[in-house]
Amino acid sequence: MSELRQNRATKEWIIIASERAKRPHDLKKKREEREKLPQLEPSCPFCPGNEKMTPGAIWSKKKGKKWVVRVVFNKFPALIPEGEPERQTRGFFLKMNGVGRHEVVIETPLHNRSLGVLPSAQVEEVCLAFRKRFLDLKRDKRVKMILIFRNHGESAGTSLVHPHSQIIALPLIPSRIRHHLEEAMRYYDDHGSCVFCDMIKEELSAKKRVIYHNDGFVGFHPFASRTPFETWIVPQKHDASFGNINIAFCKKMARALKSVLEKIHIRLGDPDYNLIIRTSPLKDREEDYYHWHIQILPRLTTPAGFELGSGIYITTIVPEYSAEYIKGHLPRTKRVKNKMN
Amino acid sequence: MSELRQNRATKEWIIIASERAKRPHDLKKKREEREKLPQLEPSCPFCPGNEKMTPGAIWSKKKGKKWVVRVVFNKFPALIPEGEPERQTRGFFLKMNGVGRHEVVIETPLHNRSLGVLPSAQVEEVCLAFRKRFLDLKRDKRVKMILIFRNHGESAGTSLVHPHSQIIALPLIPSRIRHHLEEAMRYYDDHGSCVFCDMIKEELSAKKRVIYHNDGFVGFHPFASRTPFETWIVPQKHDASFGNINIAFCKKMARALKSVLEKIHIRLGDPDYNLIIRTSPLKDREEDYYHWHIQILPRLTTPAGFELGSGIYITTIVPEYSAEYIKGHLPRTKRVKNKMN
Repeated sequence: MSELRQNRATKEWIIIASERAKRPHDLKKKREEREKLPQLEPSCPFCPGNEKMTPGAIWSKKKGKKWVVRVVFNKFPALIPEGEPERQTRGFFLKMNGVGRHEVVIETPLHNRSLGVLPSAQVEEVCLAFRKRFLDLKRDKRVKMILIFRNHGESAGTSLVHPHSQIIALPLIPSRIRHHLEEAMRYYDDHGSCVFCDMIKEELSAKKRVIYHNDGFVGFHPFASRTPFETWIVPQKHDASFGNINIAFCKKMARALKSVLEKIHIRLGDPDYNLIIRTSPLKDREEDYYHWHIQILPRLTTPAGFELGSGIYITTIVPEYSAEYIKGHLPRTKRVKNKMN
Repeated sequence: MSELRQNRATKEWIIIASERAKRPHDLKKKREEREKLPQLEPSCPFCPGNEKMTPGAIWSKKKGKKWVVRVVFNKFPALIPEGEPERQTRGFFLKMNGVGRHEVVIETPLHNRSLGVLPSAQVEEVCLAFRKRFLDLKRDKRVKMILIFRNHGESAGTSLVHPHSQIIALPLIPSRIRHHLEEAMRYYDDHGSCVFCDMIKEELSAKKRVIYHNDGFVGFHPFASRTPFETWIVPQKHDASFGNINIAFCKKMARALKSVLEKIHIRLGDPDYNLIIRTSPLKDREEDYYHWHIQILPRLTTPAGFELGSGIYITTIVPEYSAEYIKGHLPRTKRVKNKMN
């Protein structure tokens, strides 16, 4: 059973999903050990040959008889596909049942290759799978919001080492996202332009934090990066929803993503990270004030009491420096590693 | 140099404090090893005899010639006491200099005893030190908000093992806190009552999530707990600001805190946790809609891409169960430990 609850003071929702308690853990290994992993791990539920260990494929892309990307139900889902998301009040308390979708995108048959070091064609397949699933999930009338994310490494919350992303389709709009939307809307009302459109224009003109640029996407370390090496990949063309992306543009996104993740992998030694695709709620897919984008947050520091208490992150590296470093304009020395601790 | 920056899209502020990069780390030890630590560690800057290793005491409580609690400047501060907090715009970008205060409360001369297992009289001294520092810091006209917090254990972000808390005095109100205040204000406007006052009334009447109750404070696992065993300690008498607390009430707070932390220590085997004192901005100290309180968040799970992306936490234990467990009404078995992974 899964349940959503709202804290009436902060308006924040949480999910209680007791089922997830049973998740397996195969990630005692350290980062350096990742490279020593086998291509195929007999006990891994995401490895080819073990398809029966996952609860049925939702979709897969095949080449010949073999799959190259495979989307399955999460075996320990945060939200359950059955039922209606009805709000229930018990006096003061507000809750609703945990209806929604929780899927896993198995990004490659290879157990030991992470997204940033996969061939470009494979990263393309992964991005196209995101698009495919988004378009399918948004047809579910109960779904209000789709979140695609990727946890890389143990400190980023991965429970299985085999490269995968996750998709959660929510029956509500989280309050934190409401606040972000409100701020973007207020900016739009003040300026008559999208804050993200303005941000990429400004970043391109300032140059110093931009680490990638192709004919569709800009990658940069934001002016107010929350963590060292935080990276945003933003489409240059305004679009509120990832769900509006077409196949050609999805391939450009893959090129940008591959390039950025590869830089992080090489220059920082395969650090743990979280990746999030931020996109508008489904009903707001045509809005002028919001602009979908990718956020990558390396886990080089630990958010602690201050971050939890204030929402303000303390970082130790200016993005102007980290951008230079990641582009390879600065020597790869111990200095940056030390800077992060 | 330290700098604050605002992300114009989300309105969230961050602090860039390059100095903090040099922080020492003595916390490679595992939890089980904590108990084997010596009472006095010759290399620890917070141990008696090493007072010269910290940048000057701000305040200390003495018994005879020895200190029992000592407050010092953070050697690697996130914010610097000198200067004026002036906002500067560079076209699109908004920043201000990182003016503020960052102090460390050394909670005991003992290197190896954490707050939850210190004698009650010592916890009282710590709470009185919090009050003392709050009252002093709020006199600084540049300070808008004071955050007291405690990081216990490596996964909670501690860089030094010797028991200590931290105080950061901010020259601004974080946007996340603004949002929390707005939500509380909206509740007040709808109901004519403080949401926290109502919450403790409801929790006391529901009983099942309450784990502590004395003549001044209620301790409970919130209905919408973000992490397993999240605990709130809320004063029953309405008060917006921790800064309004008197000495007698501060002693009651210490009793509540000691009891709750001890339960967590014993029943969960000294887990890592973050503790935060949530209080109104200084100017809002008389508000009807906000209510100061303590939040304790055990670090039994890792917030990952989903939590970062949505602000929604996924937890695996219902608070009704965790409350029973922490009170000792359920056998201490491996079951709960397993549930958390």
